[in-house]
Amino acid sequence: MAIVLGPNQYGKAEVRLVHIDRSTPVHKIKDVNVTSQLIGDFTADTHATGDNSAVIATDTQKNTVYALARLGGVGAIEDFALRMARNFVDKYAWVTGARQEVEEYFWDRIVTSEGAEHDHSFVKGSPEVRTTVVSKDGDKETVISGLQNITVLKSTGSEFHGFPEVEYTSLVETTDRIMATVVTARWRYLGTDVDWDKTYAGVRSIMLDTFAAVHSLSLQQTLYAMGEAVLEAHPEIAEMRLSMPNKHHFLVDMSKWGLDNPNEVWFAADRPYGLIEASIIRDDLPPVPEAWLGVKGFI
Amino acid sequence: MAIVLGPNQYGKAEVRLVHIDRSTPVHKIKDVNVTSQLIGDFTADTHATGDNSAVIATDTQKNTVYALARLGGVGAIEDFALRMARNFVDKYAWVTGARQEVEEYFWDRIVTSEGAEHDHSFVKGSPEVRTTVVSKDGDKETVISGLQNITVLKSTGSEFHGFPEVEYTSLVETTDRIMATVVTARWRYLGTDVDWDKTYAGVRSIMLDTFAAVHSLSLQQTLYAMGEAVLEAHPEIAEMRLSMPNKHHFLVDMSKWGLDNPNEVWFAADRPYGLIEASIIRDDLPPVPEAWLGVKGFI
Amino acid sequence: MAIVLGPNQYGKAEVRLVHIDRSTPVHKIKDVNVTSQLIGDFTADTHATGDNSAVIATDTQKNTVYALARLGGVGAIEDFALRMARNFVDKYAWVTGARQEVEEYFWDRIVTSEGAEHDHSFVKGSPEVRTTVVSKDGDKETVISGLQNITVLKSTGSEFHGFPEVEYTSLVETTDRIMATVVTARWRYLGTDVDWDKTYAGVRSIMLDTFAAVHSLSLQQTLYAMGEAVLEAHPEIAEMRLSMPNKHHFLVDMSKWGLDNPNEVWFAADRPYGLIEASIIRDDLPPVPEAWLGVKGFI
Amino acid sequence: MAIVLGPNQYGKAEVRLVHIDRSTPVHKIKDVNVTSQLIGDFTADTHATGDNSAVIATDTQKNTVYALARLGGVGAIEDFALRMARNFVDKYAWVTGARQEVEEYFWDRIVTSEGAEHDHSFVKGSPEVRTTVVSKDGDKETVISGLQNITVLKSTGSEFHGFPEVEYTSLVETTDRIMATVVTARWRYLGTDVDWDKTYAGVRSIMLDTFAAVHSLSLQQTLYAMGEAVLEAHPEIAEMRLSMPNKHHFLVDMSKWGLDNPNEVWFAADRPYGLIEASIIRDDLPPVPEAWLGVKGFI
Repeated sequence: MAIVLGPNQYGKAEVRLVHIDRSTPVHKIKDVNVTSQLIGDFTADTHATGDNSAVIATDTQKNTVYALARLGGVGAIEDFALRMARNFVDKYAWVTGARQEVEEYFWDRIVTSEGAEHDHSFVKGSPEVRTTVVSKDGDKETVISGLQNITVLKSTGSEFHGFPEVEYTSLVETTDRIMATVVTARWRYLGTDVDWDKTYAGVRSIMLDTFAAVHSLSLQQTLYAMGEAVLEAHPEIAEMRLSMPNKHHFLVDMSKWGLDNPNEVWFAADRPYGLIEASIIRDDLPPVPEAWLGVKGFI
Repeated sequence: MAIVLGPNQYGKAEVRLVHIDRSTPVHKIKDVNVTSQLIGDFTADTHATGDNSAVIATDTQKNTVYALARLGGVGAIEDFALRMARNFVDKYAWVTGARQEVEEYFWDRIVTSEGAEHDHSFVKGSPEVRTTVVSKDGDKETVISGLQNITVLKSTGSEFHGFPEVEYTSLVETTDRIMATVVTARWRYLGTDVDWDKTYAGVRSIMLDTFAAVHSLSLQQTLYAMGEAVLEAHPEIAEMRLSMPNKHHFLVDMSKWGLDNPNEVWFAADRPYGLIEASIIRDDLPPVPEAWLGVKGFI
Repeated sequence: MAIVLGPNQYGKAEVRLVHIDRSTPVHKIKDVNVTSQLIGDFTADTHATGDNSAVIATDTQKNTVYALARLGGVGAIEDFALRMARNFVDKYAWVTGARQEVEEYFWDRIVTSEGAEHDHSFVKGSPEVRTTVVSKDGDKETVISGLQNITVLKSTGSEFHGFPEVEYTSLVETTDRIMATVVTARWRYLGTDVDWDKTYAGVRSIMLDTFAAVHSLSLQQTLYAMGEAVLEAHPEIAEMRLSMPNKHHFLVDMSKWGLDNPNEVWFAADRPYGLIEASIIRDDLPPVPEAWLGVKGFI
Repeated sequence: MAIVLGPNQYGKAEVRLVHIDRSTPVHKIKDVNVTSQLIGDFTADTHATGDNSAVIATDTQKNTVYALARLGGVGAIEDFALRMARNFVDKYAWVTGARQEVEEYFWDRIVTSEGAEHDHSFVKGSPEVRTTVVSKDGDKETVISGLQNITVLKSTGSEFHGFPEVEYTSLVETTDRIMATVVTARWRYLGTDVDWDKTYAGVRSIMLDTFAAVHSLSLQQTLYAMGEAVLEAHPEIAEMRLSMPNKHHFLVDMSKWGLDNPNEVWFAADRPYGLIEASIIRDDLPPVPEAWLGVKGFI
């Protein structure tokens, strides 16, 4: 028995890159946060002895982010992450794998008082974040994309009852509550020949649509319906993982002051919160756990 | 000479209140964060001896937030804060002053795939926050409203040059840079007979418009133009204070790799950042420093 | 082919519990944050139809946290998490698995001016967080404990050179730099018959010791030495995963002002940062990937 | 009536500086965050027209932070801030005022397993932050120092009762509760000929001591006692401002499950929280409101 180095990776995290497409006077902005990591047996030496002769410096990985953005723009974040991964794995024989993460933030054009969209002035829009994690192991490439930080709320159309009365149960059943959550979703693509932007827009739209449409008997039901609808519409997606906190809104009891409260006045609580996490899969596809290694949290 | 209690206030901070107007099937949502504080000579006793006989508990202030929301809804946050302040000062003789702060967060209706706005399903929109601080000292009421967390960026139309070359100067002049900032603004109203929502929308629009329109030679110039345009259009506003960090975007130098970078690829830095803070005032109005006591930061 | 529910869990997250042991006038405080999650086939119903008849409400899980703390105190967080997991899996036949996470925060006693430790007054100490994740799948129990938020820095004794000069490399070699990192570590125990507190103290001490002792040629070398030393001293630990950002400190170049800077004045950068992540394992033990499912990040 | 520029300031915020004193093999570390701001009539031009001919660039202010650290070390943060302010106001005739803020973070030496303090390896200690704000207006210099982020808790020795039963009161009186708060304090010095480090240590010690010693009937009482004790012991301090949130710990009611809870099991709540803010002053000294302009919050 010996103590040895197991799976590992190293790189540069959170490289903040803003790319301005100035090819016309109507500028386009791409605002991303890139984390580049490399994998290979060569890392054993630096771990064991500090021999860095095969270590592509994390600073070099950062520079590569900027250089590739200069050479080919950013484009869809999945394409950018694939370009990064291929750059390292194809160029350096000793680098056998790469893991590239990109987060994208969104800007809207400022609409001036005359109603026109401004050419080069922007305002930060929705807090929504589009994500991708590209894993490349030799020739094998896996793309897991996602969205996060989309907060949704239904002011009615949500019930919760029928749960068992067991030890320490004190929750009261309800047929009308506020349901609110912050959606984090990740989905694994079956390949890399995908119209990334179109799929992202489609998934996002289906998820909001389904959240709105489902009359909910539990957050689990809503979550599953959202994932199922996405997989039904998008055969290019193999599986989806969802993490949805139940951001509790408690009805304020005003009866002691002689006031009723017909579901109008709510206390929005911080902690604790419910937490529902699930994967929605296709039953004929094998799981690919290694692709999910290092993806934050359950999903 | 004696050590004595100076100015002081106490209350409940960050009472999270969500109000749903269910008067029609098309629900309306108000999402606010309320801080209520009371002022009066009576607090000397609890500070000196722990005698609480005149201390309206902070828990009671919290309950009042909810009760007033039940009795009259929330409405414009300025009106809600005024109702809170008047409730305490008018009802309890020993309470001579109140300071009520409200932050408002915004939700959009979910637009379903058919293009319709949903009746009761919402998605958190812009990170923008609308604020108000109402100070009531006896009969005197002052309203300072504001907006914060609006991030704006110009990808061109911003220069910075002509600054003096003094000791430790190393900055290079530029005639084309990215200018980005997160606007925090507060403005003091001359009275309380104001269409709060209309003014807020007007101020917000003027500020974005001006940011977009001004060809900027310094962030100070942009800031002042924004404030000046607001005061010109809104005689009901006495003064405005603005705090605008210069969120630096540095052009990545790629010359050592034989690459040019014609203002396309930028590194978005975190810290340090420039910080420009200024007030724009009317020269015939006396300052009212006490109204600004306790407002966070310069503004 | 069908779309089906894959792995999933649900529960209550971040139940903030403070327990005061008042058995003597010298109070003891335990400050923890508990996340309880349950697993079982029964969840398929609520996902499919909203039938909650087997769903132990997340509110009930929260209540159980408090009740178990009342009945047996908290003790070592690993024991508390095991008690939680066994409570649910042993008591309810349809609950086949549980995942319990506990974070612990630390308080020091206030030392009064006379030099005595106060009986019941505490001050929040180090930002260090002790963690545990207990997974129970039927009879099989796995404990992964950890520590996080320990920031360490060496002001010398750290070099970085010998890395290859490849495309986009611009980093300059150094034989003397500041090395700083925030340690996040998780280690999997071989069983549950462990003196948890003693092992935690031992691991923590070894890690700090090794960080200080190693003359570092790369952060990878320091990381591996830290993990290796822990596994050598603690046969009850099967493997360790470490995530250590390289929090860069850049020497400020003052040559343009005629000033040298012999490693005295540094700029502490925020982003980007290096990120080194590795597992240190025993080569005769099989991996247990399922125990790591849902552990945040690489580790 | 005209719209004009009112009070304003500009500079560089959050310059992160780590200084290593390497004069002996036992290194010393100073870890600070500096915000430099300048004031003067010259700023009117850049606000009005973008004429920057008198604007000492914020980048230059940042460079000056590093240069002064190189030339004289950091020392007590009050001295460093005074050196910064004097550098700008004395050197440039058109700069009539400066406002320098410094935050200091603390590191402990790593104590190795042999019990020795390491020469050059450090671990981040308490989350406590020491602060100073130096305002210089021509020859007039004002120093306001402070401490923040010290969290303290008493597990007994705190009561709250005797408050009036008014409209919307529902709080129950208690003679034994947990009292917890995060202390933010700022105190104004009468001059600049002060042993800054000694006074800081003294103030900190008195505040913790008093928090522990006072049997509390209200958080106000505890706050005032803390401030009064400081002013009694430190004649060099003119006044102190304190902001202390009441971080509520609620006793969990377990009676519905047949369990008592003799002040042992508590829920630590996030929001809302009580907020007590007060100044403790000397009644023979005039107020100096301008020194407090821009200090965050009430204090």
